Amino acid sequence: MSDPLLLDGRIVSQAMRDEVKERTDELKRQGHDTCLATILVGDDPSSATYVKMKGKACEKVGIESKAVVLPADTTQDTLMQTIKELNEDPKVNGILLQHPIPSHLDERAAFEAIHPDKDVDGVTSASFGRTGLDFGRFPSCTPGAIISILDYFNIELEGKDVVVVGRSPILGKPVSLLLLNRNATVTICHSKTQALAEKVSRADIVVAAVGKPEFVKGDWIKEGAIIVDAGYNPGNVGDVEYDACYKKASAITPVPGGVGPVTIATLLKQTVESAEKSAGLLV
Amino acid sequence: MSDPLLLDGRIVSQAMRDEVKERTDELKRQGHDTCLATILVGDDPSSATYVKMKGKACEKVGIESKAVVLPADTTQDTLMQTIKELNEDPKVNGILLQHPIPSHLDERAAFEAIHPDKDVDGVTSASFGRTGLDFGRFPSCTPGAIISILDYFNIELEGKDVVVVGRSPILGKPVSLLLLNRNATVTICHSKTQALAEKVSRADIVVAAVGKPEFVKGDWIKEGAIIVDAGYNPGNVGDVEYDACYKKASAITPVPGGVGPVTIATLLKQTVESAEKSAGLLV
Repeated sequence: MSDPLLLDGRIVSQAMRDEVKERTDELKRQGHDTCLATILVGDDPSSATYVKMKGKACEKVGIESKAVVLPADTTQDTLMQTIKELNEDPKVNGILLQHPIPSHLDERAAFEAIHPDKDVDGVTSASFGRTGLDFGRFPSCTPGAIISILDYFNIELEGKDVVVVGRSPILGKPVSLLLLNRNATVTICHSKTQALAEKVSRADIVVAAVGKPEFVKGDWIKEGAIIVDAGYNPGNVGDVEYDACYKKASAITPVPGGVGPVTIATLLKQTVESAEKSAGLLV
Repeated sequence: MSDPLLLDGRIVSQAMRDEVKERTDELKRQGHDTCLATILVGDDPSSATYVKMKGKACEKVGIESKAVVLPADTTQDTLMQTIKELNEDPKVNGILLQHPIPSHLDERAAFEAIHPDKDVDGVTSASFGRTGLDFGRFPSCTPGAIISILDYFNIELEGKDVVVVGRSPILGKPVSLLLLNRNATVTICHSKTQALAEKVSRADIVVAAVGKPEFVKGDWIKEGAIIVDAGYNPGNVGDVEYDACYKKASAITPVPGGVGPVTIATLLKQTVESAEKSAGLLV
């Protein structure tokens, strides 16, 4: 087999960021700033790193970031009040609550408190519902990123058999619905799925979204399949056995440099969309 | 093969209605009425029949029905205002907008205007989102009914391969998510699906939700499969070839008398749940 097409997320991400920059510039010319509020609760170092990374990404494309940091012993009331204030703040176009939050807090309740118009990270059930029914905004960012990558590289989805491995609320479920809305035939697999390898072996496109390093094996996949690896595990390892899949795939996302960078670009894109909407440029 | 288990919806429906009756009686003892508002727009005779049937079903289980009838030339504003008033009316526990409404109206916008707490028919994207993410109420009624039937007859769902044929917002999509949340492995098929017969032939459970008479053929299904027919076409014909499927299935829903009666019972159940919630009996 010849080498597969590398679905390089850095290229897609750069194109998206360039576009976001133009749009924030245009907003500025019209007197509107664009602002993403981030909420970090507690002192988990990787969460802190993610939030910092997102703040820097904002800065580069002309999005202000308003970083709210709450102590690890924050009460639910304080967290909800913080979200409420950001919902009501006309300067804030998007709200990102960094997952995970300390376990004494109800993360779902906190997510649900984010106003759908500012849910640029696509974590509320309202956003999930609109995504699934194919109207309104915003999909959660990783699923949105996966579609952007497939579109950028002109991967045909209609009529394709897709197996999604994983069913999380912000990844497996919404990406399945996005792919379904693009006329793919989608099978959603998970920990209780029987004969998983056989199911994966029938897929034209495999989306690995399970959060376990090298979980999808090279010998499961069909010769010529397209592999989208949404996993990002310690040591820069994805959810698929990369080398073995590389040999059989017709196209594959690398890890790192695949879905990850496009996920952040999607957050930026959705933030500027929200700003355009509140400035009356988008309806 | 021996005859399949008949998944008789009338039995399930009766059990559910008996329970609803007890619950409305209990609410009455505590001074609370239960009320479903129905909105019929225009003069489509089958819509009128459906609304009448639902009103009668309410009456039998102690639910008042408030029938709002709007002329065929109703404006979107009037429809939205009607929904708003019903949202705000503390006596109304549930709102049903009979589908379809005249084509000059935006049905999705009207559905979305229903307050999620009163969306006992499960048509809003908010309800769809909560159903998909597996919290809160209410699923749309036919998907809810399908799960009730499978549960009533103790059909195991975990690890089963389910093929859902159809992807409508109030049937195919939500039933797929409900089955997924019950640990089935779900493949969602539709008009663009390739090799549909082959996919159906691998299913342990087939849910036909396509709205085309006898669309799913008896020779597609696996010996011993479980067949759920959510179709209801003119002439009491379902979406599966009943006789041919009957010979091969291990269990099957009849049409009529399968999913249909349980769908109405689900509407009643969700209405009483809403009433219990607003009376402070449920949280």
